[in-house]
Amino acid sequence: MSGEAPLAATFEDVRAAAQRLRGVAKRTPVVTSRMLDERSGARVFLKAENLQRIGAFKFRGAYNAIAQLDAAQRSAGVVAYSSGNHAQGVALAAWLLEVPATIVMPADAPAAKLAATRGYGAQVVTYDRAQANRAELAAAIAAERGATIVPPYDHPWVIAGQGTVALELIEDAGPLDVLLVPLGGGGLLAGCALAAAALSPGVRIYGVEPEAGDDWVRSWRAGRIVEIPLPHTIADGQQSRAPGELTWPIVRRLGAGVVTVSDDEIRAAMQFAFERLKLVLEPSGASALAALLTEKVALRGARVGVVLSGGNVDAATFADCIAAVSAAR
Amino acid sequence: MSGEAPLAATFEDVRAAAQRLRGVAKRTPVVTSRMLDERSGARVFLKAENLQRIGAFKFRGAYNAIAQLDAAQRSAGVVAYSSGNHAQGVALAAWLLEVPATIVMPADAPAAKLAATRGYGAQVVTYDRAQANRAELAAAIAAERGATIVPPYDHPWVIAGQGTVALELIEDAGPLDVLLVPLGGGGLLAGCALAAAALSPGVRIYGVEPEAGDDWVRSWRAGRIVEIPLPHTIADGQQSRAPGELTWPIVRRLGAGVVTVSDDEIRAAMQFAFERLKLVLEPSGASALAALLTEKVALRGARVGVVLSGGNVDAATFADCIAAVSAAR
Repeated sequence: MSGEAPLAATFEDVRAAAQRLRGVAKRTPVVTSRMLDERSGARVFLKAENLQRIGAFKFRGAYNAIAQLDAAQRSAGVVAYSSGNHAQGVALAAWLLEVPATIVMPADAPAAKLAATRGYGAQVVTYDRAQANRAELAAAIAAERGATIVPPYDHPWVIAGQGTVALELIEDAGPLDVLLVPLGGGGLLAGCALAAAALSPGVRIYGVEPEAGDDWVRSWRAGRIVEIPLPHTIADGQQSRAPGELTWPIVRRLGAGVVTVSDDEIRAAMQFAFERLKLVLEPSGASALAALLTEKVALRGARVGVVLSGGNVDAATFADCIAAVSAAR
Repeated sequence: MSGEAPLAATFEDVRAAAQRLRGVAKRTPVVTSRMLDERSGARVFLKAENLQRIGAFKFRGAYNAIAQLDAAQRSAGVVAYSSGNHAQGVALAAWLLEVPATIVMPADAPAAKLAATRGYGAQVVTYDRAQANRAELAAAIAAERGATIVPPYDHPWVIAGQGTVALELIEDAGPLDVLLVPLGGGGLLAGCALAAAALSPGVRIYGVEPEAGDDWVRSWRAGRIVEIPLPHTIADGQQSRAPGELTWPIVRRLGAGVVTVSDDEIRAAMQFAFERLKLVLEPSGASALAALLTEKVALRGARVGVVLSGGNVDAATFADCIAAVSAAR
C-alpha cells in the first residue's frame, strides 16, 4: 500500500538470501502425513527445519548476515549472545565463512550446548545470569574488538535469511491458504511472511507463541509493542518479552494474527511428531504443529503450511514430554 | 555369471516395483550430516525409511505384492501374520487397493499396534503365542477363504518392492562404494542388493543383524542356511531364525558379507539419531547406522549408503534407549 512506512526487509532480500544459502544450508524436506490430513481436515505440508544444520532454522539468518560483512568486518569477527540455537547458528556460520566468533552464554547453560558451540570453533564467554547483563557484556566485547554483533532476530539480514524457510516450502509444496509459524522474537515469522505474501498471495499467516509468553498477542490487541515479564514455558526458544522493533511492523502488516498454545498442547504435538512423523521436535519447534492439532485457526479444507522450526531438546525433557502424553491418554 | 541358478527376483522386477509405487509410497529423503561424515571418515547418505508410510519400509513390498494380484485373487483377499511393521504394511496396502485383509497377530501385541492395524480397515485375528502356530493359523484362514498369503520377506514381489529403497537412494545420492542394510529375513537386503549391484557396480553390500540373532553370519560362514533358536534382542524386527529360502541365494551372490551389532551399539545409534539427526529410529531401524558408527566394515574415504529402515518404537523403549546412553557417557 502506498503511504506506508518501508519495512526493514523485502521479498527481494529473502530471494538474495536464498542465493547465498544455496549449497550451504540444507534444503530441508517437506513432510506430509495422511493421518495428519485426516485428523485436521486440511492438506498439511510440514517444513522440517529440525533437519537443518545445527538442528534448527537459526543457521539461515546467521549465515545470511555474516556472509554480507565486508573484509574488515570479517577479520574483526562477530559476537552473539544466546543460550540456544542462535549460538550454534552463528558459530557454524562464522566457522564456514572463516570469521572469528565469540558467543556469550550463561555459565549454567547445558554442557552439551557449550561443547557444541565450542565444537564449531567459537570462543565461548560465560557469565553469571544473576550478576551480568548479557547484551551489555556482548556490546562491551564487540566494542573492544571492533566486532559486529549478530542479533538473534531483529536485523534485516537475519529476517531475510529465516524467510528462506517459507520460500522453499512454497516452492516445493505449491501455494498455501494458511501458514503457521513458531513465534518468539519474530525473525522467522517476519521473514516467512515476506516470502509467503509474495509467493502465495492471499495466504493467511499466523504466528504461534506459548500461552505463558503472549507478548505478541497482547501487542496485536493493543496495536503496539507491549512488553511482558520473562515468561515461564517449556518452549525455551520462545521466551521473548516483546516483539522486535523490526519484526513487529512486518508481522503486523502481512500477518493475519497470532495464536497461543499451552505447554501441554506443545507436549502433545511433540508426542504426535514422535509417534506419527518419526521426527524429534523441541518444544518451540512443535508450537505451530500444536496450533494445527488443536485447530487454533480455521483450516478445514485448506492447504496449510506448518514450520517445524527445530529439534534441539535433551533426552530427559524429550522422554518426559512423550511419556506424559502417552500416560494421559 | 553363466551357469548360475536364476535368482528369485531381478533388477527389472525392482524397476517395475518402482513404477507401481510411484505416487503411492513416499520418496523418502536422503539425509546427510557433516558430523556423521567427520566421525566416520566417509561420505554418508542415510535413506530415511522411518519417514515412509506406516513408519517403515515394509509398505513397499506389501503394496508391490498385492498390486500384482488378479481380480479374483483381490476379491478373495489377503492374509498376513506379523506382530510388527509387516502387519501395518499389508493392512495399508490392501486398504489402498481395496482388497480385504486379515492380519494374524498375537493377542498380547501392543494395543497401539492392534489398533493401528484395525485402523487401516484390516480384520485382526488374535492368537495365544503359547498355544497356536501363527503360520498354520494364517494358512488355515487363507485356505478357507481362498485368500492369498503375503509373506513378510520370502517372496519375489516383496523382495522387489523392498529393493526400491536402494534404487531411490542411489538415484538421489549417486553411486556408492558401500551399502549397509538392516537384516532380518533378508527381503530388504536382497532387494537392495539387486538394485545396488545394477546401479552402482562394484558396491560392497553388507547386511547388519543383531549379535544375539546371528543366523545370517553363521549361514554365511557355513555356506548354507543355518537355523538358530529364536534370538533375544532389542531389535524386534530382526528376530529371524534363519535366512529365507529366496533371500539367501540373492544375498549370498550379490552381498559382500554380514556383520553384527550389539544391542548397546543399537541403542547408541538410536541416541545418535535422536541427538544429531533429529530422527526417531526403532532398534531394528538403527542397526545399519550402528554398524557405521562402530566401523564394522572398512569405510574410510568411501561413499556409504545406510538404510534407516523404520521408526516404530514405543515411548518407554525409546526413552530408555536415549537415556541409558546419555547416562553412560
